[in-house]
Amino acid sequence: MKIYVDGMGGDNSPVEIVKGCVLAVNEYDIGLTIIGTYEIIEKELSKYKYNKSKIEIINATEIIKNDDEPALAIKRKKDSSIVVGMNLVRDNNNAVLISAGNTGALLAGGLLKIGRIKGILRPALAPIIPTKNGPSLLIDAGANTDCKPKQLLQFAIMGSVYMEKVIGIEAPRVGLVNIGTEKNKGNDLTKETFKLLKGSNLNFIGNIETRDIPYGVTDIIVCDGFTGNVILKLIEGLSSFILHSLKENMLSTTKGKMGALLLKSSLKNFKDQFDYSEHGGAPFLGVNGGLIKAHGSSNAYAIKNAIRQGIKYLNQEVNKSISEEIKKIDISEI
Amino acid sequence: MKIYVDGMGGDNSPVEIVKGCVLAVNEYDIGLTIIGTYEIIEKELSKYKYNKSKIEIINATEIIKNDDEPALAIKRKKDSSIVVGMNLVRDNNNAVLISAGNTGALLAGGLLKIGRIKGILRPALAPIIPTKNGPSLLIDAGANTDCKPKQLLQFAIMGSVYMEKVIGIEAPRVGLVNIGTEKNKGNDLTKETFKLLKGSNLNFIGNIETRDIPYGVTDIIVCDGFTGNVILKLIEGLSSFILHSLKENMLSTTKGKMGALLLKSSLKNFKDQFDYSEHGGAPFLGVNGGLIKAHGSSNAYAIKNAIRQGIKYLNQEVNKSISEEIKKIDISEI
Repeated sequence: MKIYVDGMGGDNSPVEIVKGCVLAVNEYDIGLTIIGTYEIIEKELSKYKYNKSKIEIINATEIIKNDDEPALAIKRKKDSSIVVGMNLVRDNNNAVLISAGNTGALLAGGLLKIGRIKGILRPALAPIIPTKNGPSLLIDAGANTDCKPKQLLQFAIMGSVYMEKVIGIEAPRVGLVNIGTEKNKGNDLTKETFKLLKGSNLNFIGNIETRDIPYGVTDIIVCDGFTGNVILKLIEGLSSFILHSLKENMLSTTKGKMGALLLKSSLKNFKDQFDYSEHGGAPFLGVNGGLIKAHGSSNAYAIKNAIRQGIKYLNQEVNKSISEEIKKIDISEI
Repeated sequence: MKIYVDGMGGDNSPVEIVKGCVLAVNEYDIGLTIIGTYEIIEKELSKYKYNKSKIEIINATEIIKNDDEPALAIKRKKDSSIVVGMNLVRDNNNAVLISAGNTGALLAGGLLKIGRIKGILRPALAPIIPTKNGPSLLIDAGANTDCKPKQLLQFAIMGSVYMEKVIGIEAPRVGLVNIGTEKNKGNDLTKETFKLLKGSNLNFIGNIETRDIPYGVTDIIVCDGFTGNVILKLIEGLSSFILHSLKENMLSTTKGKMGALLLKSSLKNFKDQFDYSEHGGAPFLGVNGGLIKAHGSSNAYAIKNAIRQGIKYLNQEVNKSISEEIKKIDISEI
């Protein structure tokens, strides 16, 4: 097992990334490799107590920034932490790269450098959405803007494998994002996809409406990447907007301030319940190696959890299962 | 001016609908017609004090229920309040129908009974989304699941007319829902639509991401009806989920209960700020007559506001302006 962590990606790199790596090797029985500018990573590491033999550094002299054009950056910045990490994942059999860096570059690099699992039409980004009923997996969250029904079927298969193997949900429920729950609802894509999912051996529960997502009506939320991105960003934006506005409203009066003080722990409980960092990052499912996109604003705790997720991903042989499940369906006949 | 109100539609009909009509005639200098089962409406009306000459009843013996199949119901239930109302809107020059009933039936009926404004490819449902920065208009919220770029251009034109004439925003900003703000982002539909909007005389501000919707980054949120429905239902579901969960969390401890008591007015302020009922209902823009879909759970206050909105819609000659703006663009050349 090889665990590679991009030391240079994300808003809080390298400080929180390196700290997360130290937390991980101190808690889990693993070793890992941080990829980044040697001196910077080494200096950060020197702040902590840990078993030195458990963390290795691989030097990478370039950094792909958030405003770099993804495909171009992957082609040109050959010595960036992302590209070096991807080459290592490609060249090692049982390896995962965890990065909080440029999402587009990770998606482009996943395709260009690591490549797809045989039979997979399009890999898909699959973040966890915390719900009242536990974690749901959103697939695809933005890797594929225009999709075909058989791609969505594959998303559902990959998502089911992931939820079963990594999150531990038996026979996970698959729901198709639609504008109504009746089977004849939706656009051309969802109508065709409905039939494919209905005819599959997945635990397909039918169409779901987005208003029910927060209640955890399904374990896997299947949609094209445009719709998934719209959902993901709206959940992020609206949740943070509501909580900030409430806070502002509370703190504008003395009575409100007193109330807010009394509610501090309630509010914290609520926020913790829906904390994305609890579940690590979003796997890019369908690439021929482990690739996990941690949130750009990940702190050490989120990075540690993404590493735990990476370990489970490899231990559970997620890609082997995806490959087996995909082989069962001859998509050329669909 | 003819204002027709469907007395039988919505979760709170006829009680709240009739009450809303009474509030409206007592507050505004208008008369109106309620369509519904005569005895039921008359009995409700008898509860209130108002100028009897201002409210007329037109009898309709059938009711289209929420679980009726929309197109079928429009064809078969010829004496339903919705169909009777639509025929009246079609046959009167300056008329609007307000209904809290079956959305699908209102959309189907709008097309089948009232018909489109000349030149409009597809009418679109356009609810108001309350934001930190005032009201934004979401168009299309679900009338058209598969769209073409020129339809989205027309949505933007209709939305601009509505926001200017009815909400009173000069040169309203038009934003295109996308998965990134850069101009080359998105799917086939948004890439093409971007070019059309860029080349139009609208106040196009470019692509917007859904995370920014709650902050009111644009006055008009343009998207296909599938995406719009996903957005609308997610906003409804997530907002109500967060507020309910917070409340539950607060009331689970004594400290929390005390805090909640102190925060009562803050929470109410917050909820009021984002109260959909403030803005009435969603106009179905592009049909050749006024048609306003009020929320299914509308109370009397929301119905009164939807009536005020209907008055403004007619006074401001929204459809005449839409017709004029649409004529300026020869869509056969796009």
